[in-house]
Amino acid sequence: TRPAIPHGFYCALRANQRGGQSTRRAQERDTTAMAEGKLLLRSFVEVPRDSHFPIQNLPFGVFRRRGQPEGPPRPATAIGDFALDLAAVSAAGLFDGPLLSASPCFHQETLNMFLGLGRPAWKEARATLQKILSADEPVLRDNEALRKNCLVPMSDVEMLLPITVGDYTDFFCSVHHARNCGFIFRGPQTPVNPNWFHLPVGYHGRASSVIISGTDIIRPRGQGHPTGSSQPYFGPSQKLDFELEMAAIVGPGNELGKPIDIADAEDHIFGLVVMNDWSARDIQAWETIPLGPFLGKSFSTSVSPWIVTLDALKPFACEAPKQEPEPLPYLAEKNHINYDIPLEAWIKPKEQSDASIVTKTNFKHMYWTVTQQLAHHTVNGCNLRPGDMFATGTLSGPVWS
Amino acid sequence: TRPAIPHGFYCALRANQRGGQSTRRAQERDTTAMAEGKLLLRSFVEVPRDSHFPIQNLPFGVFRRRGQPEGPPRPATAIGDFALDLAAVSAAGLFDGPLLSASPCFHQETLNMFLGLGRPAWKEARATLQKILSADEPVLRDNEALRKNCLVPMSDVEMLLPITVGDYTDFFCSVHHARNCGFIFRGPQTPVNPNWFHLPVGYHGRASSVIISGTDIIRPRGQGHPTGSSQPYFGPSQKLDFELEMAAIVGPGNELGKPIDIADAEDHIFGLVVMNDWSARDIQAWETIPLGPFLGKSFSTSVSPWIVTLDALKPFACEAPKQEPEPLPYLAEKNHINYDIPLEAWIKPKEQSDASIVTKTNFKHMYWTVTQQLAHHTVNGCNLRPGDMFATGTLSGPVWS
Repeated sequence: TRPAIPHGFYCALRANQRGGQSTRRAQERDTTAMAEGKLLLRSFVEVPRDSHFPIQNLPFGVFRRRGQPEGPPRPATAIGDFALDLAAVSAAGLFDGPLLSASPCFHQETLNMFLGLGRPAWKEARATLQKILSADEPVLRDNEALRKNCLVPMSDVEMLLPITVGDYTDFFCSVHHARNCGFIFRGPQTPVNPNWFHLPVGYHGRASSVIISGTDIIRPRGQGHPTGSSQPYFGPSQKLDFELEMAAIVGPGNELGKPIDIADAEDHIFGLVVMNDWSARDIQAWETIPLGPFLGKSFSTSVSPWIVTLDALKPFACEAPKQEPEPLPYLAEKNHINYDIPLEAWIKPKEQSDASIVTKTNFKHMYWTVTQQLAHHTVNGCNLRPGDMFATGTLSGPVWS
Repeated sequence: TRPAIPHGFYCALRANQRGGQSTRRAQERDTTAMAEGKLLLRSFVEVPRDSHFPIQNLPFGVFRRRGQPEGPPRPATAIGDFALDLAAVSAAGLFDGPLLSASPCFHQETLNMFLGLGRPAWKEARATLQKILSADEPVLRDNEALRKNCLVPMSDVEMLLPITVGDYTDFFCSVHHARNCGFIFRGPQTPVNPNWFHLPVGYHGRASSVIISGTDIIRPRGQGHPTGSSQPYFGPSQKLDFELEMAAIVGPGNELGKPIDIADAEDHIFGLVVMNDWSARDIQAWETIPLGPFLGKSFSTSVSPWIVTLDALKPFACEAPKQEPEPLPYLAEKNHINYDIPLEAWIKPKEQSDASIVTKTNFKHMYWTVTQQLAHHTVNGCNLRPGDMFATGTLSGPVWS
């Protein structure tokens, strides 16, 4: 038997909670938008004040109903304390727009088909959902049978991995993280490698072991780095670690040999999830020369169950860090933006009753944007497919605050 | 428009032809087997002397019939100059063994379901096919309508990628290649990195761009390594290269967190393909620090259309190179074998009428065996799935002969 995670190591990615605060800020900004003639949307579904899921968010996921027997996997959005079953919404004919009314995309066990439809369909779905969930719209509000069929209390829901991940890529896009890595592995004067400021450095990760957040992690066994002239040891990792990242979920993608222009990159990114890039540092350190991370990472990668769309994140767009030297033309973008998403990681050791914060950062510090990552990824002709995932690398910030 | 591959660069992987010679050698060995009371199998289908596909081989692939309209993808085996349509064989009820008689595995567009069934089903399929194709068996031989329905001339066949590749891993398992790499990149006295003799070094490759041999390669664009203090250049790769490898195709695989014991590893390997790990050396050299190969490889990886099963390769098993130091217990195997598979690569420049040989090697020189690669890949709990692929790395030999 293998030792348990030490001290019941438990990494609570509270980033979702912070996302919830961001979403409340979205509501505040929407107040401004109303003053400009736009509507302050409210749902007929009661949304608790600290909920991550007001009508302005509407993330996408896949769930099944708990119980005997368990229900089949179904696409959903979240509203307050409910999952809205999109297969049921679709079966009721409520997706009545031109792109979705005849589409079987919500009668699938994953979101991949929906992702493949592209941004016009995503916008149509969002508009439909905001309409049927709004306080002024009777179609669902006043139809109790339909409402009970479509709205499932979160307590009755088990969230599943929402996509089949074709390929998973991990980038290394925080300059603060790049500096920290140099410091940790090679000392305080170590400069960031020269290629780093010219391209988003990345590597292929393992797709099969991407799992939904909350799934137990089994401590990996492997060869650890020998100290001095000793032999490598073998056993359960003694340096299990986490990395707080976010990951972009790819939409339509491209054919092999046809790069996606940076100006079109955003249309291929459906949304973002929070990601924990579990890492066994002793395994990683020993195996990594010369081909990069492998078994030190491939044992598990956790992602949050709800994909928050770029459309929902629009109110949090902010300027991305200035890049010096100027990127090559294929990476130069007119709209060089990140999103203001506060992120935290907390750890609760087994014998401690409360969790302690160990990381506090923000997505907005990222040097290479997700659109630059995508344009770079395809510039050699590499094809992306709906449901592919690419992560940011550890999102370190400039200071601990 | 992008420049064409220079001089019409064309890499003919003649390894298949060599495989054909190996198979003939199998027939010779089978003569010995007959003397021991076993049967020298012959097919009623005429097999040309230089064919890769006698009844002793029976590789698996997926094809469609050319024509208007093109047929759907169908699993097949190869016999002489014909593809045998396994969907048609199955529909005719000829797979009458306990594992396959009720299975829809040959009515799929890829081999993944069949791979998932495991070695007992693979052996049953092979036994059935050897029986119905043998010279003494009338069921297909004497039924002209069925024969015409099942046996498709190779000239009417388009071969397709036979599997959906979930994850593709590339190892680095030839010690001669590891030595050559050190020499080329860092000079003649460079030792192989210390971890190399303790574990099969590998990295995750890109699954989406695995293509069937014969598909045109589009020269990748990207950032090339700057020389001296110059800036990186951007454009079509000026150092497009090939790597002659073989790759193992995974059968049932394992659940996340449950490593496959080295003693069971062979049962998870269906067979081998020849692979060309196309590499853009200028892109690779610039991007590779610190996370390994990425866009220098991910633009295309070609594999041969027919998967030759380990069962067919049995007559070519040979002792693998002695390992020093002795591998850790999880990599120590009783049956430490490779296969004697001569391999060659030929290049035919556009303005030259004949191809020239540039590589001549053998699979048998590989230091870490495919079973060791598989056991290592899963020792940390990483899950393999049917249709996953892992390659050997460039298969260099001890000398140019």
